[in-house]
Amino acid sequence: MTRASIDLNCDMGEGFGHWSYGDAPDEDLMPIISSANVATGFHAGDPMIMDRLAGLAREHDVGLGAHPAYRDMQGFGRRAIAASSEELVNDILYQVGALDIFARRHGIALSHVKPHGALYMTAAKDRALSEKLIEALQVVAPNLPIFCMGVSETWEVAQAAGHPARREFYADREYDASGAIVFARKAPSFEPAALADKCVRACVEGKVTCIDGHDVDVAFESICFHSDTPGARDIGRAIRDALEAEGITVARPAS
Amino acid sequence: MTRASIDLNCDMGEGFGHWSYGDAPDEDLMPIISSANVATGFHAGDPMIMDRLAGLAREHDVGLGAHPAYRDMQGFGRRAIAASSEELVNDILYQVGALDIFARRHGIALSHVKPHGALYMTAAKDRALSEKLIEALQVVAPNLPIFCMGVSETWEVAQAAGHPARREFYADREYDASGAIVFARKAPSFEPAALADKCVRACVEGKVTCIDGHDVDVAFESICFHSDTPGARDIGRAIRDALEAEGITVARPAS
Amino acid sequence: MTRASIDLNCDMGEGFGHWSYGDAPDEDLMPIISSANVATGFHAGDPMIMDRLAGLAREHDVGLGAHPAYRDMQGFGRRAIAASSEELVNDILYQVGALDIFARRHGIALSHVKPHGALYMTAAKDRALSEKLIEALQVVAPNLPIFCMGVSETWEVAQAAGHPARREFYADREYDASGAIVFARKAPSFEPAALADKCVRACVEGKVTCIDGHDVDVAFESICFHSDTPGARDIGRAIRDALEAEGITVARPAS
Amino acid sequence: MTRASIDLNCDMGEGFGHWSYGDAPDEDLMPIISSANVATGFHAGDPMIMDRLAGLAREHDVGLGAHPAYRDMQGFGRRAIAASSEELVNDILYQVGALDIFARRHGIALSHVKPHGALYMTAAKDRALSEKLIEALQVVAPNLPIFCMGVSETWEVAQAAGHPARREFYADREYDASGAIVFARKAPSFEPAALADKCVRACVEGKVTCIDGHDVDVAFESICFHSDTPGARDIGRAIRDALEAEGITVARPAS
Repeated sequence: MTRASIDLNCDMGEGFGHWSYGDAPDEDLMPIISSANVATGFHAGDPMIMDRLAGLAREHDVGLGAHPAYRDMQGFGRRAIAASSEELVNDILYQVGALDIFARRHGIALSHVKPHGALYMTAAKDRALSEKLIEALQVVAPNLPIFCMGVSETWEVAQAAGHPARREFYADREYDASGAIVFARKAPSFEPAALADKCVRACVEGKVTCIDGHDVDVAFESICFHSDTPGARDIGRAIRDALEAEGITVARPAS
Repeated sequence: MTRASIDLNCDMGEGFGHWSYGDAPDEDLMPIISSANVATGFHAGDPMIMDRLAGLAREHDVGLGAHPAYRDMQGFGRRAIAASSEELVNDILYQVGALDIFARRHGIALSHVKPHGALYMTAAKDRALSEKLIEALQVVAPNLPIFCMGVSETWEVAQAAGHPARREFYADREYDASGAIVFARKAPSFEPAALADKCVRACVEGKVTCIDGHDVDVAFESICFHSDTPGARDIGRAIRDALEAEGITVARPAS
Repeated sequence: MTRASIDLNCDMGEGFGHWSYGDAPDEDLMPIISSANVATGFHAGDPMIMDRLAGLAREHDVGLGAHPAYRDMQGFGRRAIAASSEELVNDILYQVGALDIFARRHGIALSHVKPHGALYMTAAKDRALSEKLIEALQVVAPNLPIFCMGVSETWEVAQAAGHPARREFYADREYDASGAIVFARKAPSFEPAALADKCVRACVEGKVTCIDGHDVDVAFESICFHSDTPGARDIGRAIRDALEAEGITVARPAS
Repeated sequence: MTRASIDLNCDMGEGFGHWSYGDAPDEDLMPIISSANVATGFHAGDPMIMDRLAGLAREHDVGLGAHPAYRDMQGFGRRAIAASSEELVNDILYQVGALDIFARRHGIALSHVKPHGALYMTAAKDRALSEKLIEALQVVAPNLPIFCMGVSETWEVAQAAGHPARREFYADREYDASGAIVFARKAPSFEPAALADKCVRACVEGKVTCIDGHDVDVAFESICFHSDTPGARDIGRAIRDALEAEGITVARPAS
């Protein structure tokens, strides 16, 4: 039995000042997705961009998620910093609060939070960080889902704490035999149709082919693709079309 | 007829990382004041400091105000940047939102917003900026008072828009004959007792002696002193003691 | 009598970390120009980019110039900051020194310095800043030419001090009746052939048509176009081809 | 047989903008030491401070060393960043070049380079980073000594490459049984006399008592103390006086 709908999320708003990022304008991606992970100023994103993205999210009825990162513009948040869990949780809260006010300005509420890049990976492996983060979210936003890998401390901790969490399936990342994604510093190139097939199969069969050729099981509540993957717009469109052809609606999860 | 109470506010949390600022620890100032203007990361302040200050504000029942600034750590927010009003309003919202989440974490609400340094002075003179700022605050926080000079566009605009505003009297700044303060890049040195007398007289008589020796009228709802003024703790304590000796309670305004 | 050769310079290396800027890769512009103004980290540019650009300059025998800016990544150095002349001169020296070491690494010497964006315009109008800057350059690099507008304090001060200076003609900027350029925050769109004609005429006749339709005289030692002007590569190529068709070689000035 | 002289170095210039660091003003430390490690803007230090420190170094005939760091102002360069060796070497060169121009402005040459905090420790353990760094220094500054721990890859690599290096003895850090220092994120408190005795013994006997109570051998060409250690001025003065009482001159090594 296949599912009736699935969330489709994308990292967005990753320019800064006069710089933009990726080849797909945010305006072109918004009609394709159901959840936007918006950069919050530490690896990318600035207040002008965040305000614009919040307006776009409202216009397209897309979930507006905070995408906090390590304080690392030079490395685009893809380089871990040996900071304490307290520092990282406070950095994350700061960024979530910053986006939250733009959500309110546009009459919407934040839909989720998803740490970016190396911070996402650090939280996945570092139980103490995931615990402190979930504990803080339980206080400031107990109903705000956190996006994470299915195979991660973040998921385990959220489950244990009863905090809402959404596991992701990565359209444009490779899987290893453990079901974990292979972290890439540079976005590779992909065929949209192949990624679309991969997503449909994951939704219908719950399986993905990992880098050594075997199938691994994947459980997830959202599909992720990245706006900096070359051809992101075509990839996102191909995924959405293929899902809909299979009778699966792209929609954010009811919360 | 003298007033029964007056608000006493101070700029705080103006360290960054391993740096602290001024000779008065935040912990020593909190018992003296009724409103804290907390740096929000653009000229000073970082998420660790903001979290700590929010906790201190709650502990001492002190109003927690956001103190947003130009993005200028090198110049401590005391150098104007030729940015558009849209950029500045978004910068301010970002910073207000960032502090707001730490307020919520500690179970309190923001009590006010006060632009810092050169941004405060720019808003005072730039009607378009004050208008766009008040307009944005009316949307995201219609009941959040803005602190400003009595002689300023900010005050005029807030009055016209019906947005709550609090005019400040500056204990440790000189006044010119127009009733405006003389902006100082470096904090000068003062006698606590003299500043305390100045504040009591302003509260009781509504007058202050300006730099050319004449008296000017001052109307205000809050007294401000700066944590980076040398001897800030003694200054704040002297002001509070002198006010109380006169029968004037130090308390935040009912909102 | 026309000139035998002219310098052709371009702002380059204006990405940061994972961001690039403009639609013309630095690698494509290098064969066209004779002088590169390389961003030095305050408005754009980072050590990886600077190292790469120094290598490219050497490879193409292009002059490697420092392009220091206000500390303003969010505004791309196009927003003036109300800093003191001392602060600005030290900011400039810092950036020049940073690029100089990459020049040495690649076995070349810096060919020039050209302040970027708003800092270039501020220096053009602010005699005290130009004086302090030229005074500092006379100490650390007495033979390093500074690029400037012909109608500017920078040019006047350099002339008076006997410091080498090169006046620029702006291929992709409008002129006003005083012979000054009209500063643009956003790069407009141009026809390459029209800009090429404009440059040839300026070289041959020493005249340009200003925004009110009259001709103004222009005196210059270098032609500038900007890598963020849409179609920069085609513009640069068109200018170079047109100059060469007129018998004018593109080459850096003998120093 | 004891040595006739020893170098005494100190980290300095570690303020930023309006912030200062440590309780010992740079002006008070300069007469005590023979080598200054000057912060170069990534963890602390700014162009105004660097210019002032270069002037002080010249005035006091103290060696002016570059003290490059991770790009980490929030963590004061004490948090490692997972950057590539290429990125780190370019970051270091950028910072060295930036200080070099202020040295030239004051008529002196850089005397040494010493990575700061976590970058110093990373280089000590990471042979590839030490190799790439020494290789780059061999090109841009083949005679510029690098300061390092005696037990470190940096020392081994410099020795192998024939690049000048100076091993440090840490007056205000604990040693472990391997002869390595115990890295501290926060500066502890010390008795000046005890540290002075420790330094004299290290100079005379070549031994220090490590944290488990045993003696370990130490070989070094410079003694280091930190300006952020509480009481740094008294500590430095006590060390210098004790050394001189023993007949050991404080002087930079002849290069």
